[in-house]
Amino acid sequence: MSATPLTDFSRLCVHTITTKPWSIEEATEKYAEAGVAGMTVWRQWLDGRDIAATGERIRAAGIDVVSLCRGGFFPATDPIDRATAIDDNLLAIDEAEALGAPLIVLVCGADPGQPLEASRDQILRGIEAVLPRCEETNIKLAIEPLHPMYADTRSAVNTLRTANDMCDKINHPLLGVTIDVYHLWWDPELKEQIERCGQAGRIFSYHVCDWRSPTEDMLNDRGLMGEGCIDNRLIRGWVEEQGFTGPIEVEIFSNRYWESDQNEFLEKIKQAYLDCT
Amino acid sequence: MSATPLTDFSRLCVHTITTKPWSIEEATEKYAEAGVAGMTVWRQWLDGRDIAATGERIRAAGIDVVSLCRGGFFPATDPIDRATAIDDNLLAIDEAEALGAPLIVLVCGADPGQPLEASRDQILRGIEAVLPRCEETNIKLAIEPLHPMYADTRSAVNTLRTANDMCDKINHPLLGVTIDVYHLWWDPELKEQIERCGQAGRIFSYHVCDWRSPTEDMLNDRGLMGEGCIDNRLIRGWVEEQGFTGPIEVEIFSNRYWESDQNEFLEKIKQAYLDCT
Repeated sequence: MSATPLTDFSRLCVHTITTKPWSIEEATEKYAEAGVAGMTVWRQWLDGRDIAATGERIRAAGIDVVSLCRGGFFPATDPIDRATAIDDNLLAIDEAEALGAPLIVLVCGADPGQPLEASRDQILRGIEAVLPRCEETNIKLAIEPLHPMYADTRSAVNTLRTANDMCDKINHPLLGVTIDVYHLWWDPELKEQIERCGQAGRIFSYHVCDWRSPTEDMLNDRGLMGEGCIDNRLIRGWVEEQGFTGPIEVEIFSNRYWESDQNEFLEKIKQAYLDCT
Repeated sequence: MSATPLTDFSRLCVHTITTKPWSIEEATEKYAEAGVAGMTVWRQWLDGRDIAATGERIRAAGIDVVSLCRGGFFPATDPIDRATAIDDNLLAIDEAEALGAPLIVLVCGADPGQPLEASRDQILRGIEAVLPRCEETNIKLAIEPLHPMYADTRSAVNTLRTANDMCDKINHPLLGVTIDVYHLWWDPELKEQIERCGQAGRIFSYHVCDWRSPTEDMLNDRGLMGEGCIDNRLIRGWVEEQGFTGPIEVEIFSNRYWESDQNEFLEKIKQAYLDCT
């Protein structure tokens, strides 16, 4: 069943990459002015910053730090590269702790030089390798299944079913799933796999945007909610039927919007959030 | 288990769109010279031709007409458009009969203005509407599941599971499936769904190419076998374990190859067929 329309911005979270031209300081100021309730911080936005102070600044502006994007990229044919990836994920956990982010989103990775099954196995082992640090810091990890068009290099986890299977295998309270409508909208099993994910208590975060027709760039042509063919309200309904009441995160990679006035873009996000999310 | 390498061209079929710069007459001559055993004809190549005479010409050159591409595109929000689509598919059946093609490949279609479930239902009804003409002409139809990145406009059938489910629902001996590695390589269920398809006697045709990393165009950047991350020999092994001994069809949409010398490209296809298929 479709969700009821959103009437305020108390659950609106924006990813720093959505307003890519803005620094973390600019984004903090602008989001606060706009009444955005939450921010998901991409790691590049922390380059050269005092991470703990940045987290304090965001919270002082009245904004929740929802998650850190992104960990993952575990698979590699070379074991040295796999060890490097695990080290980088441990560093991400440290960054999340310093920032005060309770969750790291995992873009799990893939290596086109090996079978997907091998990449999936390396993802499992990578997650297992970093979970002890998660336990020490109480930072959660969310597997984000990515669209099958990214199966060659970005993620060997391409359906919610596969993400749920992986969570079942590891079965750890700090491991769950990020549901992103862009990656999953096409899947005939989506509703039942959202139910499965919810019943296991593993819906850790929820990302929205839209799929434009035609999509002109495989990475950076996402649409605002309502600009494409995704029924955002229906999918949000499925997620909320599972008891999810967390942030609704607007994650839009868009060359066309990044080239536009970011103040106007943020207003469009708010309108699309009310009208089409 | 991976298939054994191919050692001759007795099962090599090339799609006319693979060598897009060549007319049907040129393709016939060039394929025959190269020892290509089969041809799948795209309907545009028949424009302005005597279709029956074209079929005779292809066979006289020693080449089998493997299939006609493409029927489908059934879904539309407007019922008039759906009726037009059914008429066009009836026309395609007439063309296949005239050409002497035993099979029509269906790119089933999708309409971004309605839910995928509605498009899937309209695909089912479209196929049912044309099957009586298939019975009269003994022309088979193959549902080709397309990659999820085409779910907005080209096909609402995006996994082999969905294609198998549709075949189960209609359950007609003239309805089966085209397995194309480009669309399906990423699917964790691929092996089991190929088995399901084979056990039902529904593997009607088999298409090969490769997935390049990075893929620079969502439509026209397919690779030659061996240029990407698809394990063509493994997937062919799964198909052949089901008893499939039919043509291996090279279907490559590639701006870079279409701009190259087509004689050299055809030689590269033959080499990639032996080395990497």
